[in-house]
Amino acid sequence: MDALARRGSLGMSVMVREGITPGSGPGHLSLFGYDPTRYVIGRGAPSALGVGLELECGDVAARLNLATFDGGGRVTDRRAGRPGDAEAARVVDRVQKQLRAPAGVAVTFVPEKEHRVVLHLRGKALGGAALADTDPLETGRPALPVAAQDEASRPTAEIVTDVLEQARRILADEPQMNGFLARGFAMFERLPSMEERFGLAGVALAKYPMYRGVARLVGMTVPAVPESNEDTVTQLERCWGEPDLYFLHFKDTDTRGHDGDFGGKVAAIEEVDALVPRITALGPSAIIVTGDHSTPALYREHSWHHVPVLLVSEWPRPSAPEFGESACRMGHLGLVHATDLIPLALAHAGRLVKYGA
Amino acid sequence: MDALARRGSLGMSVMVREGITPGSGPGHLSLFGYDPTRYVIGRGAPSALGVGLELECGDVAARLNLATFDGGGRVTDRRAGRPGDAEAARVVDRVQKQLRAPAGVAVTFVPEKEHRVVLHLRGKALGGAALADTDPLETGRPALPVAAQDEASRPTAEIVTDVLEQARRILADEPQMNGFLARGFAMFERLPSMEERFGLAGVALAKYPMYRGVARLVGMTVPAVPESNEDTVTQLERCWGEPDLYFLHFKDTDTRGHDGDFGGKVAAIEEVDALVPRITALGPSAIIVTGDHSTPALYREHSWHHVPVLLVSEWPRPSAPEFGESACRMGHLGLVHATDLIPLALAHAGRLVKYGA
Repeated sequence: MDALARRGSLGMSVMVREGITPGSGPGHLSLFGYDPTRYVIGRGAPSALGVGLELECGDVAARLNLATFDGGGRVTDRRAGRPGDAEAARVVDRVQKQLRAPAGVAVTFVPEKEHRVVLHLRGKALGGAALADTDPLETGRPALPVAAQDEASRPTAEIVTDVLEQARRILADEPQMNGFLARGFAMFERLPSMEERFGLAGVALAKYPMYRGVARLVGMTVPAVPESNEDTVTQLERCWGEPDLYFLHFKDTDTRGHDGDFGGKVAAIEEVDALVPRITALGPSAIIVTGDHSTPALYREHSWHHVPVLLVSEWPRPSAPEFGESACRMGHLGLVHATDLIPLALAHAGRLVKYGA
Repeated sequence: MDALARRGSLGMSVMVREGITPGSGPGHLSLFGYDPTRYVIGRGAPSALGVGLELECGDVAARLNLATFDGGGRVTDRRAGRPGDAEAARVVDRVQKQLRAPAGVAVTFVPEKEHRVVLHLRGKALGGAALADTDPLETGRPALPVAAQDEASRPTAEIVTDVLEQARRILADEPQMNGFLARGFAMFERLPSMEERFGLAGVALAKYPMYRGVARLVGMTVPAVPESNEDTVTQLERCWGEPDLYFLHFKDTDTRGHDGDFGGKVAAIEEVDALVPRITALGPSAIIVTGDHSTPALYREHSWHHVPVLLVSEWPRPSAPEFGESACRMGHLGLVHATDLIPLALAHAGRLVKYGA
């Protein structure tokens, strides 16, 4: 990446607005050129798309966490000890089989990854999806009620309450994974595609369902789940050609940031770094290296800080011998909004015509 | 402040728009998070609030300068020799007592500071407040007419013309303070408060009525007038606790800039600098050091140049060993709009939740 920086342009980007910390949904929308304050989606919709559910307009989805509750109904572990995928799938299957769906609604649970589960609802009995999260965000407290935030969402709140209560009863004998916390309720509405907005056909290569989901939401093609970072690049090599834009997602830098593991974050960057020559060898006319938010290892959470951007093309204004926050702060791209990155890449790739004569 | 810079983030801010020089009203509105092109107030309203007048919707206020006119009605001193407060109060009192208020209007003159006076009008005979300033901005020329800039403001223009002419007659025998120049006509409309817009309760500590007025306009609490810069900090220490946000205003850097006194400006900064340890000792979760506009000593007036910003918190990206224009230009905050400073401070103080999941 340092070699790319020497022949590229550097800058910083604002993901949403100054001071605003993006969740992964808004962060990726912004990278894909969709202002996340205009295109508002709950986490449920991209998660549902990410696990391969075919959403229809009016469907409601939410992100569930498998969690541990004590005898008094208080949450003792918000992630149920971070179960393995197979363990989680087993209890999700129990719930799916024993649940009696409320009248007029089809209910589907799909395991996402570890403690993460997607809840999908479809049917005429549903109302809106303006529901508050039930996650109390700390242990020792009971789950919050499924609160409707507008009149139209009351029927949905009742249905979800019923479903979550049934799940608690079904899982009552489980030692750890004995209930769900729900957040990111969303009603699915189709977004205008990248093809419609930018004339771009895109391919997204990402391991995690969430990012695959956001990519599908904007009309990108999402091939098979890569098995590793290396396989992500192998898939890129395999499908290289027709599409205009490829999105490659590498998760580990964020994960190590959440862990507060600075050394691990460096190692995660170095692992991706080693794959860069295989990407440049394909001869893309522009490459952007960036993130959908900062996750400082000291802060251990997503943050509002500006995100470094590296843009490589035949037409750069290089300014530094390396890629990093300090170099990017002084770079020629300056401070741009993340939704400007695709237009910038298109310009650098010679894909935009002059505005006016 | 250099010590703060070493552990803070630096940047520059645009107060209104590029190239636009803010008056103190728009400058402070912007700092308080109110885009001054959207929230348009004349200088009269905050001045009136600043001197303690209780404004009602529909009241009209203006900033007057006591000025010196020659026998031919030409302005020979736009500030009437900068009279002392007591001297100014004496002539304002003469005008107030002898004036015959136009029918259907109550007229109040309140001395503000030195040559500065507030004119306050209330009553059914008033129309709009779109009136041009009468200050010719240079000596040797007569005052400009009170020109209505729309149809609705014609009755107000006639009333103000009458009032200013009466004042000239009443003060005809004064050697220096023998008339008024008027500017910043404004009709009072309540702004949405900081509490309503940001959920913030604020306290403003400022000596000058104008800044106290803008603070009141956005719903901040304005305690007793500080006697000095030091007393400003003493008051801060006294009321430290309940409110979310404290605004401390130090005037002298601006005044020395207007005077073209570079050394004096440095001394004014150093005087405030010496008070910084008492502020940091209170343990605020975020501190912003900035101004509402530049006043370069060479230029001697407010200017359009970017304004240096220093933001201190537990989560900085430090970049320089000192606070200054050159360091701020290279700082990690980049170039931000002043209305983004409160959101940024809230983020740094851990007061904002993530946007989207």
